[in-house]
Formats: sequence, structure tokens, C-alpha cells
Amino acid sequence: MALSESAAHAPTIEDVVAAHATLRARKPLVQAITNTVSTNFVANVLLAAGASPAMVDNPKEAGLFAGIADGVLINLGTPTAAQVESMHLAAAAARKAGRPWVLDPIAAGGLPWRGGVAADLLKFRPAAVRGNASEIIGLAGLGGGARGVDSSSDPSAAIPAALELLAHASAVSASGPVDHVVGRVEGRPVLIRVGGGSAWLPLVTATGCALGGLVAAYAGVSPDPLTALVAAHVHFAVAAEIAEADAKGPGSFARAFIDALHGVGEAALRARARIEPPVFLA
Amino acid sequence: MALSESAAHAPTIEDVVAAHATLRARKPLVQAITNTVSTNFVANVLLAAGASPAMVDNPKEAGLFAGIADGVLINLGTPTAAQVESMHLAAAAARKAGRPWVLDPIAAGGLPWRGGVAADLLKFRPAAVRGNASEIIGLAGLGGGARGVDSSSDPSAAIPAALELLAHASAVSASGPVDHVVGRVEGRPVLIRVGGGSAWLPLVTATGCALGGLVAAYAGVSPDPLTALVAAHVHFAVAAEIAEADAKGPGSFARAFIDALHGVGEAALRARARIEPPVFLA
Amino acid sequence: MALSESAAHAPTIEDVVAAHATLRARKPLVQAITNTVSTNFVANVLLAAGASPAMVDNPKEAGLFAGIADGVLINLGTPTAAQVESMHLAAAAARKAGRPWVLDPIAAGGLPWRGGVAADLLKFRPAAVRGNASEIIGLAGLGGGARGVDSSSDPSAAIPAALELLAHASAVSASGPVDHVVGRVEGRPVLIRVGGGSAWLPLVTATGCALGGLVAAYAGVSPDPLTALVAAHVHFAVAAEIAEADAKGPGSFARAFIDALHGVGEAALRARARIEPPVFLA
Repeated sequence: MALSESAAHAPTIEDVVAAHATLRARKPLVQAITNTVSTNFVANVLLAAGASPAMVDNPKEAGLFAGIADGVLINLGTPTAAQVESMHLAAAAARKAGRPWVLDPIAAGGLPWRGGVAADLLKFRPAAVRGNASEIIGLAGLGGGARGVDSSSDPSAAIPAALELLAHASAVSASGPVDHVVGRVEGRPVLIRVGGGSAWLPLVTATGCALGGLVAAYAGVSPDPLTALVAAHVHFAVAAEIAEADAKGPGSFARAFIDALHGVGEAALRARARIEPPVFLA
Repeated sequence: MALSESAAHAPTIEDVVAAHATLRARKPLVQAITNTVSTNFVANVLLAAGASPAMVDNPKEAGLFAGIADGVLINLGTPTAAQVESMHLAAAAARKAGRPWVLDPIAAGGLPWRGGVAADLLKFRPAAVRGNASEIIGLAGLGGGARGVDSSSDPSAAIPAALELLAHASAVSASGPVDHVVGRVEGRPVLIRVGGGSAWLPLVTATGCALGGLVAAYAGVSPDPLTALVAAHVHFAVAAEIAEADAKGPGSFARAFIDALHGVGEAALRARARIEPPVFLA
Repeated sequence: MALSESAAHAPTIEDVVAAHATLRARKPLVQAITNTVSTNFVANVLLAAGASPAMVDNPKEAGLFAGIADGVLINLGTPTAAQVESMHLAAAAARKAGRPWVLDPIAAGGLPWRGGVAADLLKFRPAAVRGNASEIIGLAGLGGGARGVDSSSDPSAAIPAALELLAHASAVSASGPVDHVVGRVEGRPVLIRVGGGSAWLPLVTATGCALGGLVAAYAGVSPDPLTALVAAHVHFAVAAEIAEADAKGPGSFARAFIDALHGVGEAALRARARIEPPVFLA
């Protein structure tokens, strides 16, 4: 199923609830080509959330698998030469087969080589790009040096870069204390902010990577990438908020977060989702 | 110590208790050539259960190490070209040195390239093969497409395939709600079902991989691969059942499972093991 | 900032408290080139302790990044050919830029190929070497075969080897029930023992690797490598001791340990640090 590039309307809690129900019913198969830090956590987040992960990242199989996966995550955290080859094959195959793929351009703004890899992958038109603000800014070529992979500017600083990236992707998000999601509704650029989450999230490694994986899962069951991004951010933020109540530190938070990703249902989504009204940007 | 290819009798709880005691006393050194999703979890499961893991998976050292390890796990989850070379070297060296090695043919049925790698490795005669039903069926060449790596048919569907694989391995298991273990007793093919476990297991990534590692550990301290498989499945299932009592979701289950793998002793094995009577198949 | 090779005085609890406060204030950027088993855990330990991890381990970027990181960890757990190339590039770049790097010579004593890699890296003068006793002995070429990667002789057996390694590194530690740290104070070789910790530590994989990462973090904020080693060992041991109170097994210990690494503050360091008086060795 090819996704619509532009949403029919700005996603609301009803769309999130519907996407979540579809995720649980269809258990989308998500191929993750991701970094060594995140593989285990991405897989556990996907399983807990209701998807079916498969970390097929070698060049012999990556293209074949992308043609049958419901969604594909391509994450630039610790790219090997073989993985970069696999990324191209998977992105090309996904595009050809009409499967959505998601680009997580880790540290693309701070390291030129991978910045080039990420920029090159844009030609295969990801359904969505997810990063922190400095990565979104870096990928868009607007500058913005990154410090490590966990740093971030204020996500609102990434809005112009996200808009620029809409030339290459249907929707773009910059994660932060308030997540900023940019896409198109009936062709018009729109910004949707998603609040909530937890201050523990940045103290657990690979949470951003895992969110990227969840975006790929929702992209496989949503009508358009903007809805997929909003639904993934909301599911993630609601689970983080629930987990915070049980956390004594980043270790117990991570464990409670996995539990909460599984436990989140329609009632929790309705009670805790913080989707701000859409802001049309043009 | 070369293992007997055929068991002297069908393994019972007494054999499991004995193998477990030997595992704890001898702390077998297990070489794991496994996928990036599972390395950390496999190592933690082995340590908790009482073994000593070493993830030596490069071609410069894999063969050397396989000659000194008590057991070797070869898992096809995310094979790199270098790992495939290491798998051949390790399997050959283990065979030459009379050390047991275990094949976990992840997704072998669904992806032709790795299916070929797995089939090729069979010439080095693994002591045991462990997979889910679709993987066992796929490896045996009976068809049965896999969906992702966590899927499974009913394990009983894999019995014919497991019997066929006895031409290449001394014992074969298909994991599922009830694990199906096939081997030979005094030359006669036999099926032993192991119940228990937990419905949370499939929601934690790499649990199957970790079980494969535990089989390699038990293979290093058991009189034959059939006993090793039954002992590993029972230790795993009993720990999972204990962990379930503390689990609020897949995150807390995973933590409790590691605790329980360590905590399981003779009394828990005797109280909770569910080894069904052997069924002779020919 | 280039570190002084010799400490001005033997590190005391005051130096540890000061280093810890600086770590929390400066959040040092730590590049970790480490094994697949440990990447996630090393990153989570660094985040919990107060540092900022980045696992840049490919040859295209490793040298560039080492020139901007506050500290670099080079860990030989599961070296790929590309990683070995990256290790050389990163160590050379760190040395050139005056950035401290830390060598964790996993299994260097037991496996000749990686032993050669580790010995070759010594020419780039690590700020510190951290290992278990058999690894320190192996690296120094004094023999001492290793069994797996989690084994250890009594750390006191590694003192002569650690002294020998002072020809190549400013400070050396051998982990164990009581950690043994060797360095120079005003040019004189000194031994400082750090007690505490927990018997659960060896049952969680990659705890040694994570300690190596923490040494790299402290090396980025300490006046000299000896102080960095002592501070990292103390922070680690105090957190482990706190975590033990909540642990029912290795799984719950690992979670509580991450929580405790984050929670440890000046009061806990002062109350629980067990730094024995320095012993001058010449």
C-alpha cells in the first residue's frame, strides 16, 4: 500500500487511536537497519508496542526484505560499509515496492561522511525523517553542529529545516521536550507539536532510535506519514509519562517504559495524549 | 569430550537436575557467534544461568576459540560476511576438536541466502539445531515461509522436518508454547515435549537466541545433545514461569527472567519442570 | 587539555568528589569503540553517570571524532577488521590532539591476534589501561592465560604487569573484588586499592567494558589519569554497592546499578568510598 504524501486532515487523537488499533491488529513487520547500540532496544520497543521487528541489514538480503516489510527504518548511528550498501538497497527496494521507509540521520549535521550518506539517501524519498533538532538542521544543510548524538537544540529551531526537508520526505519530526512534527495537509505545510514524554528519555540510550523504529511501524499501518509520525510520537510520549511514575533512575525508567509501551491502550492515549492544534505554516 | 550422538535413555527430570548441577559446577565456556540484537542478552542469560560466555566472532580467532570452548553457538540472525567466514571456521574447528556446536537458523526458511549458509553449515554436523517451527521447516527444505524472525507455526508442524534434520544433527528442537525436542534414544527417533514457559517470552527480543546459547552451554556438560536440549529447554521454561509472577510487561519480565535463570535450583526444577513422556516415532 | 602523566599527589576522596562534580558539570563527550555485547550498556552507564556517549567506530569518522571527544574508549571485545583500523586512527588522532584515550584489552592474554593489536596500540600511549588481572598480565607479556573474558586472577597478581605497563600508559587498573590501580605520583610508582562493589558485577555482562568507558569519561575531566582511574572505580563501586540492596539477581542488579550510577552524589561518595592508603612501590 503506497501512502498518500499529504494528509487529508491534520491528525487528531481519533487518528492516533485508529492507527494504534491497526498496529495492534496487523502487527506490522518492520525491517530495522540500525546501529549496534540500539538493535536490542529498538527490537524490544517494537515488540512491546505491537510490531514485529527484523534486523535484516546485510547487502545480500536487505533489498529483498525491504520489498516485503511493512515499514523500514534506516538509522545512521554506527554505519559500516556493508550497512551503507544495505541502506541504499533497502531504500531503493522500498521505494520501488511502495513501502514506507524512515530515515534517522543520527549526527548527520556533525560528521561530513555520514551527512553525505544521509543526503544521498534522500533521493529514495523517505516517508518520514526523524531526528533531534541539530540532526534535522544538519541534514537540511542549514548548519548547526551536533555535539555527540544525544544533543539537541530547541526543536522549534528546526522548523525551517524540517520545512526544507519536505522537498524530500512527506513528513519530518524533531524530537525534544516538545516534539515538533511537520508535514502537509491537503498540500499545505503544517506543524503539529506533541507534548508529554519524560525527562528520563534522554538519559536512556537509543530512545530516539527506538522512536524512529516505531515511526516505521506506524508508517506501515497509517494512511499517510504525517499521521504515522504523530501517532508514533504520541504512543511514545504517553508510555514515557506512564513509566516515569515507576522510575527511580534511568535503569528502572527503561524497564517501565517497555512495560508501558505494551500496556498503552485507547484509554491511556485519550487521557494523556498532548497533541497541540495544528499550525499552518504557509 | 565427544558427545554420544544417541542418548542411552529418554532424558528425565533426573537427567536435567544432573546436567544443571554440572553446569553450575563446571561453568562451561560458550563461544557465541550471534546477531547484534542478541549479543548482550545471550551473554547475560549465559552468565545468569551459570555459564561463561565469550563472543569471539572474527575470522582471525573464531576457529582457534572453537577448539577450546566447551560449546559453540552459531546464530544466523544478522550475518556479516566476516561472521559467515567465522561460522565456517568455528564449526569446522569444533567438529575437528570434538566440541559440540549448536545451529540457530534464524529466518533460514524465509531468506534464500542465509538458508544456503545454514544448509552449508550442516556438513559440520551440529550437535543440536534449535529454532522456531518455521525455521526448522525451512532448514529441512520442506518449505514454510517465515514472517519476520519471531513468527512460528505450531511446533508440532515441525516434527517431520526435525526428523529429517536428524540426518545432520544429533538432536533438534522447535520452540513454541510447548517446545518439541527430537533426537534418538538407542538409535530410535524420539519426541519429547517440554511445557511451561511464559507468554511474555515472544515479546522480548532474542529470547530464542538466548535459548540457543543455553543449549550450547548444556551441550558442553551433558552426555548427549538430546539431554542437553531437554535440560536447556526446561531450565529456560522454569525460569520464565517464575519470572512471569513478577512481570507487569515485557520489560519487567525480561529483568525477572534473568534473575530467575540465576535463581533456579534443583527444587524449582523438580517442582516446575514439565517434561512429557517420550514418544517414539519409529 | 593534555593530562599530566604523573599525579601531583595520591588521589583522595576529595579528588574523587571534585572529579565527579566536574563530570556532572561538563558532561564529557566520550567516543566508544567497543564490542557488540557492550555498546548499549556502555552508553547507558555513561549517560547515567553524567557523560555523553558517542559510538563512532567506523574508519571514515573515528579519527575525526577522536580529535573532538573529551575521552576515547578503545575496547577489544569483538574487533572487526574495520574497527581495528578505526582503533588505530582514533588512538593516533587522540594522541595528536592531546585527548586521553583508554585501552580495555579484553582477552589480550588469551588470544594472540588481538594481543598483537593491543600491544601495537600501546605506541599511541593510552592515558590508562583497564582490564581484569589476566588481561593486564597478558598485555604486559608476562603470560597468564585467560579463560573467557570474564575470568580473573587475583588482581594483586597483576601488580608487576601493571608496573611494567607504566612504560606505555600513565595509569593501569586491574578490576576484581578489590580493584588495584597503579600510576605515578610525582614520578614514583604507586598502588591504590579501591574496595566495595558487588559480587553481582561479574554476573552482568559488559560491566568491565562500562567501567572502561567511565574511565574515559573521567579522563576527560581529571587532572591526571591516575585520578581519573580512581574516581571511575570509586563511582562504579559505590553505585554497585547501593544497587546490591535492591537486587534479587543479576537482572534486577543491572537495572538498580544504572539507577545508582545516576543517583550517586557527593554524600554517597563520601559515605561509601573505600580508597585504601597509597602504597609506594619504588
